[in-house]
Amino acid sequence: MRALRDFAAEAEALDAADPLRECRAGFVGSEASLVYFDGNSLGRPPAAVLDRLGAFVRGPWADRLIRSWDEEWMALPFELGDRIGAAALGAAAGQTVVGDSTTVLLYKLVRAAFDAAVTSDPRRLEIVADRDNFPTDRYVVEGVAAERGGRVRWADANASAGVDEAALRSTVGPETALIVLSHVSYRSAYMSDAAALTRVAHDAGAMILWDLCHSVGAVPVALDRWGVDLAVGCTYKYLNGGPGSPAFAYVAARHQERLTQPIQGWMGNADVFAMGPDYRPAPGMRRFLSGTPPVLGMLAMQATLDMIEAVGIDAIRSKSVALTEFAVRISDALLSPHGVSLASPRDPAWRGGHVTLSHPAMRAVTARLWERDVIPDYRDPDGLRIGLSPLSTSFAELERGMRAVEATLAAELAR
Amino acid sequence: MRALRDFAAEAEALDAADPLRECRAGFVGSEASLVYFDGNSLGRPPAAVLDRLGAFVRGPWADRLIRSWDEEWMALPFELGDRIGAAALGAAAGQTVVGDSTTVLLYKLVRAAFDAAVTSDPRRLEIVADRDNFPTDRYVVEGVAAERGGRVRWADANASAGVDEAALRSTVGPETALIVLSHVSYRSAYMSDAAALTRVAHDAGAMILWDLCHSVGAVPVALDRWGVDLAVGCTYKYLNGGPGSPAFAYVAARHQERLTQPIQGWMGNADVFAMGPDYRPAPGMRRFLSGTPPVLGMLAMQATLDMIEAVGIDAIRSKSVALTEFAVRISDALLSPHGVSLASPRDPAWRGGHVTLSHPAMRAVTARLWERDVIPDYRDPDGLRIGLSPLSTSFAELERGMRAVEATLAAELAR
Repeated sequence: MRALRDFAAEAEALDAADPLRECRAGFVGSEASLVYFDGNSLGRPPAAVLDRLGAFVRGPWADRLIRSWDEEWMALPFELGDRIGAAALGAAAGQTVVGDSTTVLLYKLVRAAFDAAVTSDPRRLEIVADRDNFPTDRYVVEGVAAERGGRVRWADANASAGVDEAALRSTVGPETALIVLSHVSYRSAYMSDAAALTRVAHDAGAMILWDLCHSVGAVPVALDRWGVDLAVGCTYKYLNGGPGSPAFAYVAARHQERLTQPIQGWMGNADVFAMGPDYRPAPGMRRFLSGTPPVLGMLAMQATLDMIEAVGIDAIRSKSVALTEFAVRISDALLSPHGVSLASPRDPAWRGGHVTLSHPAMRAVTARLWERDVIPDYRDPDGLRIGLSPLSTSFAELERGMRAVEATLAAELAR
Repeated sequence: MRALRDFAAEAEALDAADPLRECRAGFVGSEASLVYFDGNSLGRPPAAVLDRLGAFVRGPWADRLIRSWDEEWMALPFELGDRIGAAALGAAAGQTVVGDSTTVLLYKLVRAAFDAAVTSDPRRLEIVADRDNFPTDRYVVEGVAAERGGRVRWADANASAGVDEAALRSTVGPETALIVLSHVSYRSAYMSDAAALTRVAHDAGAMILWDLCHSVGAVPVALDRWGVDLAVGCTYKYLNGGPGSPAFAYVAARHQERLTQPIQGWMGNADVFAMGPDYRPAPGMRRFLSGTPPVLGMLAMQATLDMIEAVGIDAIRSKSVALTEFAVRISDALLSPHGVSLASPRDPAWRGGHVTLSHPAMRAVTARLWERDVIPDYRDPDGLRIGLSPLSTSFAELERGMRAVEATLAAELAR
C-alpha cells in the first residue's frame, strides 16, 4: 500500500502546483468521479458550450437567420483556421481553414499535391506513408494512388513505432510526389522530428503532409518554421469540438495558387454567390472548401481556443509532459509487476500527449474499466491507451485511474 | 386599400383553417414580427433544439463520452437516413445515410456512378446536367468529367426553367453514363416529373441522380416507386438542421454493392475499428461514408423529423401549395402593376415550395427588405425568391411580407 499512498500524495502536490489547475473546472463532467483517459479521441465538452449553443440558436440562427452568412458565417472557417494556426500550429494567417471531416480534407490535399507533382514531373508517382499511420490516412493514400495511376511506398517504422530520419531518407527519391505521416502516432504516441523529416522530403524534391490529429492542442507545432507544405488535423480531440466536429487543413501560402483540389463546390469558387457558369478556384484557402461550412460543429472548439490562447501552448505541453511522466512512473511501479510494458517512447521529447501500455489482457481490462466509469481507449493488438488532455485532466484523476487499471488487471489475471 | 384588407382577412381565415397552424410555435423566433421568406435556404431553428443541445452536451457527450459512439452515434447516420427516407423520400430503410456536405456527397455519388458506367461500357463518357442546376451540381459534374476523361452534356431547359421529358430524351443516348438534375429548381421552383425523367434515363441505359435540396420536407418524393438510382439533398432548408448541417445520400439497394466511392476513410471500411491494413468497402450504405460522422450537426433535424412524422408529408405539401398559391395571387394583384412577373410555374403541380418574382429592381429591394426584418432571398439575374417553409410560415406572415415587398418596390421605383 505504500506506493499507492505515495502516488496519491504526489498527485495532490502536483495538482496544487499546476498552473493550469483551474482549467479543469471549465469542462462539463469534470466534477464527477468518472476518470477520462480518452480526451485524445473525444475531448470533454467545454462548459462554455452550453451558453454558446443557446446563444447561437437564439441569436445568429433564429434572429439574424440567413443574414448571418454575410455577417459572420462565411468568414468563420477562415477566422477559426487562423486562430488554430496562431494558437496551436505556428501558422501565420491565411493558411488554415476549417471544414469537412479529416478524411475528406486529407483526400483533397493528397489529390492536390499528387496531381501537382505528377504534372510537373511525370516520374513522381509515389506517395510515401507508414503502416502505423491511422487507417484513414492509409486508405486515402491507397485510394488516391490507385485512381491516379500512382503507388504507395511504405516507410519502415523504428522500434518506437515511428518513422525516423534515416528510414525516411532511404525510402524517398526522385519518384516521390508526397509523404504523408502522422506527427504523433495514434497508437504509440511517438512524436516525429517533423522539422527534420520535412527537410528530408524537400531534399528529395517532394512535398510533405503532416497529420496533426494527435498533436493539435497538446504539443507545440511550428508549421511555418519547419517549412511544412500541407497539414490536416481534427478538432474533436484536444480542441474539444464535439463528436465529428469539422477538421482543419493547412496549405503553405507558397503552394496555394498552384494547388487545386477535385471536389469543386460553390464555396470554393472564386465568386460564391455569382452562381456563374464555370468553376474557377478562389484565391487563397477558400479553394480548398467545397460545400456549405458546418457552422454548428464550429462552436464548441471556440471555447477551447479561448483557453489555449489564454494559457499558451507551451504551458499545455509542460503539463502534458508532467502528466505522461507521472503515468509512466505509476505504470513502472504498479503495472510492470503484472507484465505490462510501455509501448510509448520513454523519453518525453519523443512522446506526444498519451501513453500506451501493452498487455495481452488489455482488451478485456478496457471493457471492464468502461463499466466502472474509468475510460481509457483500446488499440489493437494489446494497447491500453491513456489519453491525458492537459486542460481537463488532473493528476488526481490520473492517479485514481491508474489504480483502477491496476486493480482491474490484477482481478482479470486472477480469474 | 381594398385589396390589402381583403388579403389580410383572407390570411386570417387561412391560418384559422390551417391544420398545421400549431407547428409554427415550434420554431424559435416565430413569435417575433420578422417575416422570413428564406426557410428554403436556412430553416428556422426548431424550439426543441435548445433542450436537445443542452441534453446532448450533458448526457451523451459529457457523461457517456467516447462510449456514446458504440451506444448511439455509430448508428446515427443510418437511423437518421432511414427516418428521412421514410418520412420524406419514399425510400425503404437501408438506402439513405447522413454525412458530409451536399457537395461532397454529390462528388462521391457522381464519381461512383460515372466510374461504374465507364467500367461496364467504355462509350458511356457523358454526364448530362442542365445549366439551371445549382452551381455546386454543375461544378461537381464538370470536375468529375474533367478528371475522369468524360464530358458534360447540357440539357435544354423549357420555358418554365426546367428540363422536360422531350428535352431530356433528345439529349441522352448510348454515351450517357449519368444524368444529374434538381427535382425542384433553386431559382424557378420548377418541379420535374421525376418519375418520367427517371424512365428516360433508364431507357437510355443511364443512371439518374436527383438533387433533392429544394424538395425534401416540402414536396412528396417517391424515390423507390420512381425507380431512382441516386439522390442527395441538404438538411438545413426544410429540415431545419442548422447552418451547414450534414446532407443525405440515397443509393438504391440494387446498386449498393457495385458502386464504390473514391474518398476511402475508416468509416467506410468493412470493419471500422479493425484498423486493418487494407480498405475494403463496407456492405450497404456505410461504404458511402468516409470520415467521422458530424454528430452535433445531426441533432436539430431530428426535431423537424418528429414534426414531419407527426403530420405527414402530404399535409405539408397541401399547405405548401396553399402558401405558394396565396403568394401568387397577392403578387398578381399588388406586384404585377409594378411590372413584376412570376418566374415560377403558375400551375402548382409543376411548382415546389417557393415562388420567384422577377423585376429589375429586385436586388435593391431585397437589400432594403433585409434592413426592415423582411427576409426573402435574391437570385440573379432579377429574382426575389419567396421561400415558404410550410411548418414555420403562417399565411399572415406571408401577407405581411408581400405587403412589405410591394411598399419597398413602390418606394424603390419612386426614387
